[in-house]
Amino acid sequence: MKNRLLFRTPFDLHQNDTLDIERHKRFLSKSKMIRLHYGFEKIDETIEADLLSMPLEHHLFEKMQEIFDGKVVNAIHGYPSENRAVSHMKCRDPYDEFNQKEIKKATQFSKNCPFKHVVVVGIGGSNLGTEAIHLGLSRYPKNREIYFIANIDPRNTEDVLGHVSLKDTLFIFCSKSGGTLEIQSNLELMKELYQKMGIEAKKHFVCVTTPKSPMDDSKTFSDIFYMEDSVGGRYSVTSMIGVLPLILCYGEEVVIDFLKGAHATDMTLLEKDPKKNPALMDALLAYWNSTVLGAEGTLIAPYAYDLRRLTSHFQQLFMESNGKSVTKDGQFTLKKTQNIVFGGVLTNDQHSYYQAVHQGTFHLDMTVVGFCESHSKVNIENDHTTLHQKLNANLLAQSIALATGQKTDNPNTTFIGNRPSRILMMESLNAFNLGALLAHFEGRTIYFGFLLGINSFDQEGVQLGKRLAKDVLEKMKSPKKDPLISHILEW
Amino acid sequence: MKNRLLFRTPFDLHQNDTLDIERHKRFLSKSKMIRLHYGFEKIDETIEADLLSMPLEHHLFEKMQEIFDGKVVNAIHGYPSENRAVSHMKCRDPYDEFNQKEIKKATQFSKNCPFKHVVVVGIGGSNLGTEAIHLGLSRYPKNREIYFIANIDPRNTEDVLGHVSLKDTLFIFCSKSGGTLEIQSNLELMKELYQKMGIEAKKHFVCVTTPKSPMDDSKTFSDIFYMEDSVGGRYSVTSMIGVLPLILCYGEEVVIDFLKGAHATDMTLLEKDPKKNPALMDALLAYWNSTVLGAEGTLIAPYAYDLRRLTSHFQQLFMESNGKSVTKDGQFTLKKTQNIVFGGVLTNDQHSYYQAVHQGTFHLDMTVVGFCESHSKVNIENDHTTLHQKLNANLLAQSIALATGQKTDNPNTTFIGNRPSRILMMESLNAFNLGALLAHFEGRTIYFGFLLGINSFDQEGVQLGKRLAKDVLEKMKSPKKDPLISHILEW
Repeated sequence: MKNRLLFRTPFDLHQNDTLDIERHKRFLSKSKMIRLHYGFEKIDETIEADLLSMPLEHHLFEKMQEIFDGKVVNAIHGYPSENRAVSHMKCRDPYDEFNQKEIKKATQFSKNCPFKHVVVVGIGGSNLGTEAIHLGLSRYPKNREIYFIANIDPRNTEDVLGHVSLKDTLFIFCSKSGGTLEIQSNLELMKELYQKMGIEAKKHFVCVTTPKSPMDDSKTFSDIFYMEDSVGGRYSVTSMIGVLPLILCYGEEVVIDFLKGAHATDMTLLEKDPKKNPALMDALLAYWNSTVLGAEGTLIAPYAYDLRRLTSHFQQLFMESNGKSVTKDGQFTLKKTQNIVFGGVLTNDQHSYYQAVHQGTFHLDMTVVGFCESHSKVNIENDHTTLHQKLNANLLAQSIALATGQKTDNPNTTFIGNRPSRILMMESLNAFNLGALLAHFEGRTIYFGFLLGINSFDQEGVQLGKRLAKDVLEKMKSPKKDPLISHILEW
Repeated sequence: MKNRLLFRTPFDLHQNDTLDIERHKRFLSKSKMIRLHYGFEKIDETIEADLLSMPLEHHLFEKMQEIFDGKVVNAIHGYPSENRAVSHMKCRDPYDEFNQKEIKKATQFSKNCPFKHVVVVGIGGSNLGTEAIHLGLSRYPKNREIYFIANIDPRNTEDVLGHVSLKDTLFIFCSKSGGTLEIQSNLELMKELYQKMGIEAKKHFVCVTTPKSPMDDSKTFSDIFYMEDSVGGRYSVTSMIGVLPLILCYGEEVVIDFLKGAHATDMTLLEKDPKKNPALMDALLAYWNSTVLGAEGTLIAPYAYDLRRLTSHFQQLFMESNGKSVTKDGQFTLKKTQNIVFGGVLTNDQHSYYQAVHQGTFHLDMTVVGFCESHSKVNIENDHTTLHQKLNANLLAQSIALATGQKTDNPNTTFIGNRPSRILMMESLNAFNLGALLAHFEGRTIYFGFLLGINSFDQEGVQLGKRLAKDVLEKMKSPKKDPLISHILEW
């Protein structure tokens, strides 16, 4: 039963009814915030019926319920593993005491904070989400400017220090474990710089970490904000990792709206009908395109300039969560898991790598993200349409072009077509909807992991490189030169 | 003969000599600027010999010579096509009159330009390269700040206008064809804004275009800078498209150094021995990994914060050039062509999608880019190594980890290994070397196109979407609503 999808013939998008309005009315999954249009996917009613039956058949709702219930789902059965619950959804739950207390503390802190610049020192999960959401909210007025140090390369630090004055700056050091190499190195550097200026560094330093981590240290930091150990780095935007800097920048009201939006999507995740649960439907379609049809890549295409860093965050979210080879039972999987995730910002990308999307030789699982209305004050009309209408005309035209293609006598101007995509629309890009969108893709990631049988919450794959980097560093310190290190790293 | 690579057994990187210094001394291609280390690739002496024989066997040097000779190489035989020469390398040739004249003009213009802000309005090939190189040079002092409008989304324009004051701003409208929708719409908008302020817009407007294009119009622009029609958008960074804004920002001296570096790499492209022609060797290894071994993606991993936008440029360069299905003879190819290109900036990426790079289920063609020395003033030493040494320790450790893997009793902490990569090192990131690096990847792209039998210089694949966007826009203007447009684009 479970593999019957493998024996379905995909719908051919060259067929006449690809653009039929009845098809598009049928192939729609929607919540109050999100409409996921999948009429441009290679599915027909039979394939859709198979997809819709999968959640019950594979017990996906029980698995999601376990997360809501705080069960230990971050685990590999029979082997040592992180062995804990998954609690990022609690971060935006208005009834959760731990996080609500931290949100109140951050709001109070922000009101009293005398500094006009904020530098967030964090890497990976402590950087990409905050940076993406920070830009996503940029249409709102800012109380403070935020800068990011996310790299061990000293040029990153130098660049940021060129934009701020140290005496006016708050540094937020973000590290869940409290032991990240990049964070520690930058902490040392900043201590030194403040010392040289004769300023007490501690007044300028706060941190976000887990209780009792090495950074939970009131000698170094004037304030310490907490996240729970059960919130994974790439799921931590709605924890203090993201919320503290965002409140300092945009104020409490905007950030609470953002959290409410994320919570609103969370509340749809247990909806049994995938046509009312867009995150689940999105995961089922990702499974169809990637795992069944073998797409080499996942393209997320936001038609919104303010979402220009969101794809980097989703690249981490998807690839770090599901880019694995071992199932929850500790078996090497026979399936291809998460493929390559990429995307930037449209319409710039249309003038760039879309050549290969239309006429190249690979398959994609593609989700277009758009907004019906614009909040821009310069959304002028020329030639009888606004800039935002022109943007959205491009959005729709791409899905049509990819699906239907173009026959010509010149092979070089021929478009084979039959390339699927789906379109996720929201009303407009406000804080609430941005939260809902973030939680949508978190939900999709978790459901996709369930379908693959994978633990989407650990990240053992980033550990070996860290350990070997320490080995290389030890060899660099030794007076006896290592020939391979000298050969490659010295000019 | 030509397919013998298909029947070679790839070198297994688990073997003991993977880390052997003699292997790494042998598997090295170098020019004065670039050292391409490929000891971490799945090749042995037999496979290397096959790769090294390909350039002569496939007449690659004759094809490259045709470009230098100005032959019409941008063509599809037997079908209408762009039918022109490929002249981006002339842009940095000190003996080329057309471009040298424009460079002098830009220098003079920059000296007399009274404005302190520059806004570059350009998209795709008129944006990504300039933005990437602009950041790549950011360690040099700036004469003016540059901002970019590269999207039809009005939020892009609004965001930039929030950072500049119109009376102090020069707008450079960049469009090779002179008819790009995004550029025209933004031109109209800026005209309106200046008019409202009672300022003559023309004084603030210059453009870069081809002679006699619709934008070659001295009524709208106070100065017009020219590029040749034979310079493709994605190859145009060293034409006025990139050079004019870069001179306004960094001054003549830095930009001339950058052009000299690009020219220096161009001068290596006809070197017959691939071991002295790193761009060619890079292309041969890309062919081995992608076309022969079937890698789903190409990862470019720069260990330099200042190169954080370079991968977006290379994504366009590679995918728009070689993401095609038709050969130069107008035949549909039987080969997989350019795969998905991605990458960001390390070490941040190591904490992000590297999980999937190490433990995921796809294959990559991977080039790491690093620099032996740092120019940073905050390259402090702690724990006996500098930040830059820590950066480079990470660089080398990743290639070792990917190649050798890790055996454990826990499948979840097991790294299968045998994942190839190559390391491109330069002495330091200065203007000259940045030019050399850019030209290296342009050269690699062209050689890779030769190996695929593809015309790397046209981009028919971006046309259909543009045309259909116009159709959708026409329907939007009509009083009679189109049901599909309403259903998807209206809330």
